[in-house]
Amino acid sequence: MPFTLLQTDTESKARLGRLDLPHGTVETPIFMPVGTQGSVKTLHPDDLDALGAQIILGNTYHLWLRPGHELIKDMGGLHQFASWEKPILTDSGGFQVWSLAKLRKISEEGVRFQNHLDGSKMMLTPELSMEIQAALGSDIAMLFDECPPYPCEEKYAAESLALTTRWARRCKDWVTQNEPRSGNGRQHHFGIVQGSIYADLRAQSATELAAMDFDGYAVGGVSVGEPEEEMFRAIDNAVPFLPENKPRYAMGLGTPPQILEMIGRGVDMFDCVMPTRVARHGTAFTLDGPIQIKNLAFARDPRPLCETAHPHVARFSRSYIRHLFRAGEILSLRLLSFHNLHFYLRLVSDARQAIANGTFVSFKNSFIKRYLKQP
Amino acid sequence: MPFTLLQTDTESKARLGRLDLPHGTVETPIFMPVGTQGSVKTLHPDDLDALGAQIILGNTYHLWLRPGHELIKDMGGLHQFASWEKPILTDSGGFQVWSLAKLRKISEEGVRFQNHLDGSKMMLTPELSMEIQAALGSDIAMLFDECPPYPCEEKYAAESLALTTRWARRCKDWVTQNEPRSGNGRQHHFGIVQGSIYADLRAQSATELAAMDFDGYAVGGVSVGEPEEEMFRAIDNAVPFLPENKPRYAMGLGTPPQILEMIGRGVDMFDCVMPTRVARHGTAFTLDGPIQIKNLAFARDPRPLCETAHPHVARFSRSYIRHLFRAGEILSLRLLSFHNLHFYLRLVSDARQAIANGTFVSFKNSFIKRYLKQP
Repeated sequence: MPFTLLQTDTESKARLGRLDLPHGTVETPIFMPVGTQGSVKTLHPDDLDALGAQIILGNTYHLWLRPGHELIKDMGGLHQFASWEKPILTDSGGFQVWSLAKLRKISEEGVRFQNHLDGSKMMLTPELSMEIQAALGSDIAMLFDECPPYPCEEKYAAESLALTTRWARRCKDWVTQNEPRSGNGRQHHFGIVQGSIYADLRAQSATELAAMDFDGYAVGGVSVGEPEEEMFRAIDNAVPFLPENKPRYAMGLGTPPQILEMIGRGVDMFDCVMPTRVARHGTAFTLDGPIQIKNLAFARDPRPLCETAHPHVARFSRSYIRHLFRAGEILSLRLLSFHNLHFYLRLVSDARQAIANGTFVSFKNSFIKRYLKQP
Repeated sequence: MPFTLLQTDTESKARLGRLDLPHGTVETPIFMPVGTQGSVKTLHPDDLDALGAQIILGNTYHLWLRPGHELIKDMGGLHQFASWEKPILTDSGGFQVWSLAKLRKISEEGVRFQNHLDGSKMMLTPELSMEIQAALGSDIAMLFDECPPYPCEEKYAAESLALTTRWARRCKDWVTQNEPRSGNGRQHHFGIVQGSIYADLRAQSATELAAMDFDGYAVGGVSVGEPEEEMFRAIDNAVPFLPENKPRYAMGLGTPPQILEMIGRGVDMFDCVMPTRVARHGTAFTLDGPIQIKNLAFARDPRPLCETAHPHVARFSRSYIRHLFRAGEILSLRLLSFHNLHFYLRLVSDARQAIANGTFVSFKNSFIKRYLKQP
């Protein structure tokens, strides 16, 4: 069993765990920096080590299109290609086909679409998604799912969910036949709970997937434009039907307060492009909420981005980083990306410590109160 | 005396020296990475330390325009602002006014122009250039000069040179009155030899500046579009008239073979944007000449960029860096910039070693032969 549940909070559903993967051990709750194209944007693997990143994410859709999974396989797999020795999780490509590709047409077989790079017509199926992820050699591969939009009629959500479940069986069959590897171990596979905003569908999806005995379970179809309370409800509707002894992963989330709320609802794993994406637009996370570094208020501000900034970034003033950002200097994107990932990784590290100490709920409430400037 | 001449080559004019500056010691011959806007493009000061950079360059024109020298002075000077504790050389702004600004009008007083950022009308004078550089607090400030174009009539070159010499006196007067500091020491000042392609004018310029007793001397007005042999001739025409016991600096040069040719002609200091600029266009330096990483030939090339690549870069294959570059990933710009600067810094370090060993000319010839693929 790759997952060990070490401790459960008494005042919330927060859990402390350990995930033993072929390329190393991951402490949960964990945040996974996103390396869409085989690189966490602007950062070097040495930076990720300095940040204490334990696992990163790679995007199957992007790597399949460019440079191609066969090339990466020939170059020794994604770990060797990207010179990253620690665990990697790859998504299934389903979400990017949904959000980036054009002329998407779903059938029982899979999804036909035109890719966003050159408009070529392509088809992604459950088997091909697993084959690509096997070639990449990630520690955790996600099952190929269909992500319904928000809002979504119950009938569509139910049919989509049924398709996701049938695709999950086909993924499972492919894995059983091909026994994909990751380094010296076996590749692990996570199912994805769908069902949109419908509690009975979320329960059905979670139950069906749990019966198929995957290594972990994600809650998908969140962060697709729904209000925050629907996002929390999707988690609440799925978690009770997922096995205690398997890790739970909320895909593509969220703000720092949302991460803590999700941990309190029993989620163990997170990924989100937000820290690096907003960095490239000049936003830095601080304990008092996000700041926009372009703001004139920071022109002569000698302070570091945040009182908890990593020394790699804290040696620079807001004044200097603002200057670099306005001057279009790439170093500013590096510093802001590094800082924001540090903020997220510190957040989950502090959360783990608080769970261990039995103080998670008060930590969460006090963090959120300051961050959202609540009275 | 800040400069100590340690050794002179017997087969060439190459020199081994040491330059003691307020923020540290520089071994010569040296290459200075260019930090135009207070940042060596794409790199962190930790990277520059890893590269063994001993001194970097800052651009007076750019920093004056944005964020402004008064702001940098208020933030503790350029060293503290950019979090770089080792020596910094600043140029005078003259070259950027010549190459970037518009509607340039030269008078005895100085140069009127419209800046390239917002078109504001501004004026740069010898006194203002020295004042800005004093505010930046660089270890070495360059005198404000007039850079004639190439080609250039002898009459224009002679008049321009006379102006440069009169401006040099005004710079010297300003320095004598204001005694600018750099950290705990005094700021050092280098004159700039002009005179275009005319040997008698180069001699005159060098002689006049040498009589004013500056801390070092640059050869300016090179790398302005002239053929390589004119560039070498400009150096050859100036060097015999410069004092032995002062460092010599060839501004804005050059290719790796040119650097070695210049060292063999008695030049001690170099700066050039080329290594970082071509990096951002996908070019990497190798012992066999430059390569363009986008080339299809590198798609599955498992080798590092160059057999002498630094471990920070050598851990990645050409295949991976090519992928990153094609995908627009900033990490590729970092790796190529880091690599090219490492190539240049290693080149001057190898040159120093060869001078010390008495093998400089054979080192130079064998490097150039391989680099230029000579039979």
